[in-house]
Amino acid sequence: MKSYRKELWFNTSKRRELINITPDIQNCIKESGITEGLLLCNAMHITASVFINDDEPGLHNDFEKWLEKLAPEKPYSQYQHNGFEDNADAHLKRTVMGREIVVAITKGQMDFGPWEQIFYGEFDGKRKKKVLVKIIGE
Amino acid sequence: MKSYRKELWFNTSKRRELINITPDIQNCIKESGITEGLLLCNAMHITASVFINDDEPGLHNDFEKWLEKLAPEKPYSQYQHNGFEDNADAHLKRTVMGREIVVAITKGQMDFGPWEQIFYGEFDGKRKKKVLVKIIGE
Amino acid sequence: MKSYRKELWFNTSKRRELINITPDIQNCIKESGITEGLLLCNAMHITASVFINDDEPGLHNDFEKWLEKLAPEKPYSQYQHNGFEDNADAHLKRTVMGREIVVAITKGQMDFGPWEQIFYGEFDGKRKKKVLVKIIGE
Repeated sequence: MKSYRKELWFNTSKRRELINITPDIQNCIKESGITEGLLLCNAMHITASVFINDDEPGLHNDFEKWLEKLAPEKPYSQYQHNGFEDNADAHLKRTVMGREIVVAITKGQMDFGPWEQIFYGEFDGKRKKKVLVKIIGE
Repeated sequence: MKSYRKELWFNTSKRRELINITPDIQNCIKESGITEGLLLCNAMHITASVFINDDEPGLHNDFEKWLEKLAPEKPYSQYQHNGFEDNADAHLKRTVMGREIVVAITKGQMDFGPWEQIFYGEFDGKRKKKVLVKIIGE
Repeated sequence: MKSYRKELWFNTSKRRELINITPDIQNCIKESGITEGLLLCNAMHITASVFINDDEPGLHNDFEKWLEKLAPEKPYSQYQHNGFEDNADAHLKRTVMGREIVVAITKGQMDFGPWEQIFYGEFDGKRKKKVLVKIIGE
């Protein structure tokens, strides 16, 4: 069994941002030399997400509007967590979007359907945060 | 380490449908010959889900009503994604239900609690779509 | 390839409760002797969750309030599932929070960011329920 580990770093200019990290993950797979196995990719922070969906700007705007409806940022005082912080909504948004993905690796490639793309979902940005990539297999 | 891969295909008659795929997954495990390991099962389309819950028709009706409350299909114009499509709600519903499950395999069986059943959740059906099963182990 | 399996048991005094199980998972990793691999931890019941977030009481109160807004417990009659039961809301709450986590193991440790903690989320408690820990690796 082989294993591989990498950290990806992000520092978004906006509080919320969705970044397509599919090419980064492809590079990790190449670098690992693993051709059959499972890949885990997870946010290492609890106000961010890694998820799979469509790379379509209209949909990304829909996500922003939808998450603001389900777990609004403001007023900050609506959340008990916001005593010394202002990011309770980011904890909830990340819960909806998910912490992690697990992806099959087959013949040295991500085993993906036609439109699957991997995103880093930042919900409390403007600071350095990281994502873990771990692969096990052969 | 052994690895196994299979695609399961679906073509639902309704836009939204929940299908119990537990027997299909059991067959995959048998076919793989893997007795200790991890199984990944994921939708290969971004408007569908694989999830674990109860096989109870009342609950499935509750899921339908609840998802329509959280991310209504209509009016289509409420979503920016629906310029050339009408399935933005399906992207959101699948986000709530999740893309994938990871299941332990122990002594050649799914390592499940008493009521766990695996479902394919279709939210934009009436066309051919597929699910990936990948197993690694020994 | 090594594999390891353990059940953790819970019996909460309240209907809903969040329990930090990070130390239990650390013990499992130590006991397994696995230093590189993947760990799966999942609720074995469909009205409970395993998830990763912050160990901050204010946030836990926010989760309780938020989940009650998204999928209220009462009135019980709003859910078709509640013919002979009263826990439809617990099935929905667990769906929002997620069934399982997959965690990387690196150098014999959980490969975690600074604030990641693992929780058992009980949404229909006051009875014995269990969580599965499965590790594969080397």
